[in-house]
Amino acid sequence: MNLKEISKKIITGDFSSLLGFGNGNKNVHPSEVAKMLTSVPINTALQGFQSLPTHTEVKVFPYLDFLLQKKIIACITKAKSAAILNELSSDDRIAFYSSVKGIERSTFLELLNEKNRDVVHDILGYPENSVARLINTDFATIDTEISIAQANEHLRKFHKDTEAANVIYVVDKDGKLVDDIPVRRFVLNDPEKKVADILDGYCVSLKMSDTKEDAVTKFKEYDRVVLPVTNAENTLLGVLTVDDVMDAAEQRDTKEILNFGGVEGLDYPYVKTSFFALIKKRATWLIVLFVGEMLTATAMGYFDKEISKAVVLALFVPLIISSGGNSGSQAATLIIRAMALKELTIKDWWFVMRREVLSGLTLGFILGTIGFIRIATWQELHLYNYGPHWFLLALTILFSLIGIVMWGTLSGSMIPMVLKKCKLDPATSSAPLVATLVDVTGLIIYFSIAALLLKGTLL
Amino acid sequence: MNLKEISKKIITGDFSSLLGFGNGNKNVHPSEVAKMLTSVPINTALQGFQSLPTHTEVKVFPYLDFLLQKKIIACITKAKSAAILNELSSDDRIAFYSSVKGIERSTFLELLNEKNRDVVHDILGYPENSVARLINTDFATIDTEISIAQANEHLRKFHKDTEAANVIYVVDKDGKLVDDIPVRRFVLNDPEKKVADILDGYCVSLKMSDTKEDAVTKFKEYDRVVLPVTNAENTLLGVLTVDDVMDAAEQRDTKEILNFGGVEGLDYPYVKTSFFALIKKRATWLIVLFVGEMLTATAMGYFDKEISKAVVLALFVPLIISSGGNSGSQAATLIIRAMALKELTIKDWWFVMRREVLSGLTLGFILGTIGFIRIATWQELHLYNYGPHWFLLALTILFSLIGIVMWGTLSGSMIPMVLKKCKLDPATSSAPLVATLVDVTGLIIYFSIAALLLKGTLL
Repeated sequence: MNLKEISKKIITGDFSSLLGFGNGNKNVHPSEVAKMLTSVPINTALQGFQSLPTHTEVKVFPYLDFLLQKKIIACITKAKSAAILNELSSDDRIAFYSSVKGIERSTFLELLNEKNRDVVHDILGYPENSVARLINTDFATIDTEISIAQANEHLRKFHKDTEAANVIYVVDKDGKLVDDIPVRRFVLNDPEKKVADILDGYCVSLKMSDTKEDAVTKFKEYDRVVLPVTNAENTLLGVLTVDDVMDAAEQRDTKEILNFGGVEGLDYPYVKTSFFALIKKRATWLIVLFVGEMLTATAMGYFDKEISKAVVLALFVPLIISSGGNSGSQAATLIIRAMALKELTIKDWWFVMRREVLSGLTLGFILGTIGFIRIATWQELHLYNYGPHWFLLALTILFSLIGIVMWGTLSGSMIPMVLKKCKLDPATSSAPLVATLVDVTGLIIYFSIAALLLKGTLL
Repeated sequence: MNLKEISKKIITGDFSSLLGFGNGNKNVHPSEVAKMLTSVPINTALQGFQSLPTHTEVKVFPYLDFLLQKKIIACITKAKSAAILNELSSDDRIAFYSSVKGIERSTFLELLNEKNRDVVHDILGYPENSVARLINTDFATIDTEISIAQANEHLRKFHKDTEAANVIYVVDKDGKLVDDIPVRRFVLNDPEKKVADILDGYCVSLKMSDTKEDAVTKFKEYDRVVLPVTNAENTLLGVLTVDDVMDAAEQRDTKEILNFGGVEGLDYPYVKTSFFALIKKRATWLIVLFVGEMLTATAMGYFDKEISKAVVLALFVPLIISSGGNSGSQAATLIIRAMALKELTIKDWWFVMRREVLSGLTLGFILGTIGFIRIATWQELHLYNYGPHWFLLALTILFSLIGIVMWGTLSGSMIPMVLKKCKLDPATSSAPLVATLVDVTGLIIYFSIAALLLKGTLL
């Protein structure tokens, strides 16, 4: 089927034949429809979306990406947009409003009914990175003094069949959180029992202002799929499901990975980011690194006499500084990741420092030895003539590598901790600092050791 | 409280006062006990664990790390080990056996009862990275022809109150999966209704041999917290909960991040990895990179005449090659991450190549211009004397940067795709290949452009 045929089928709302479920004994999952809509040009997607039955539109909407969601709300009739936005589950509604900014946000807010608008408005007051932005406010609550049979009847009457009802919450008369009960306990226990009898007495919860990273840690620690979210006074305000947090964890990791590679976190996936947005995200860092690295030209300028006397020294510059850079980025990666996973805190700096200095000396000695053997071998096999003082040159390489690798691991491990201490994000800022510092100081270490060892012979 | 006092309390099993819940109106969550045990020396932890009440031991055990779990099973009486291992929920049991290898595994397998041993044995036959290794086999199944009230009674009689009962599965008489029903529907619907009436007709499932990454993608795509797992014939064999997959996603990201930083994935957290294990993980890559980078010394050896004639060329070597390396690692990071998140596949290579060549030319031109201005400024302000031919030198830098940055982004984006095509892990092998290739070829590009532009003047 070519793109034109696909588009035609989409516009006429004939998704089932596209998805190969034409035999009619399976429903098409909203996520499949969304995937299809996301893969065609945006105008086709818009037409396709509008051809869906109304109750399906609301189901498909949350699975679309924010670009398409915005386009849809902006283009369809006001009444229809309002219906969709008010019908969404509360977490999907908040996610949508979090993704639009400024005037667009205010305009779209007017589409909500008063109750929904107030809730969204309150939640948008919390920081972008807080769990408040991910909560579902349609949770189900219950009293402890009734029987399970009564509880079931209450739930049946007052609660919608949504994901948020997978765990039922017990609150006291002031709305303060007492305990949480997985809904399965209402099925698996004798209906005559009191609700109070099936409480387990543990209740892990999150605060509205906790960060998404805090939530990831807590879900992992307690192996939960839903956690209640309260304000500072322990009043239950919403629930958080793990799938939303999983996305947050993935975003954190993506940002961390891109930052390591010297790219600012992208707002959209690579394929959806425009050419100029991509250039902008990359150019900033490349320029910062480039300007930092210019110091290497300055540093080498100080040693131009030495280089002109012993050109052979210049041959090893790339090898020497890349070793410092590599060992530095290894150390930085290990420490930043361990801090992100909360395995390490800045209190452990002394442990880390001792360990990294020792690692650096060991690794430097290993590389230095290989470098020494390389020069000796090339000299003996007449592959390159390093001159009569090749032995001293090889020693210079050996000692420089020990010094530079040690210095690389030390800066690589300590700079992230110092940045963290200064409340800066270690993942974002460590790479350029470590790279520039290690390259520039590495050159100084190398030429200083050379000056010391080769004085009177090569220099 | 000092460490000695803490140890004493732990050994006597007095966790509640340690955790500040001494007032007695809250239970201590097993995860809190586990955290406490993990933070003290291993022998204290062992004693502390044994002082727990028997039913608490089984609850705490899954939250401990594998090192401590192994130590406990090896040290306590056979009868007790057997009781713990047989009582664990099936996914925790499989996780434990997956973490032990060889003889130890066989010895520990003998502790299980026949039924459990058969299940564990079967599952260990699947690859380490398959979802089979994460499933819980204690799922609850039901027939469609009965009423909800009857279903509830059946579930109450035959199923344990475990996480696996959060979703109930409908299977036909051959055990083939038909549909899944969140347990909340048994509470929220009229008990007189038939089970068949509350099916939604979508049933997303995983296969035993799917990889953990496939599972992550599917959970994200369908926003689920539990998915059923079947064999190739669609027979239901177990269920997979999202928290176990979250750990898998985090491990994938950690491995990817460490690989970018040039470190092999660690088997244990940084703080728990021994000094020598850490050196081994780091030395391998440092040596590979170092040996690769030795080619830079060889490449520069070919240009030693040029360098001795124009020492000034050597001053810019670190700047030039680091720019190539940085732009290469940016491109590699973007592409590898986009492939890991399945936003890009190798089919998109032509789109990526055009885009990256254009990005490289643009970025190279930006950096080249800055480099040109730097030389012109230093020359005009008499900060450094680049000689009478400084203008030609500045042009050399400009053109070299355009060439090298373009080459860096091109190799950085294509090498991961080629590795993926060859069924190699792009995250593991791209970094050293890109670094070495771009550094060595970067030098050749630089000196060739210099030879071309400076012939008859500086050279």
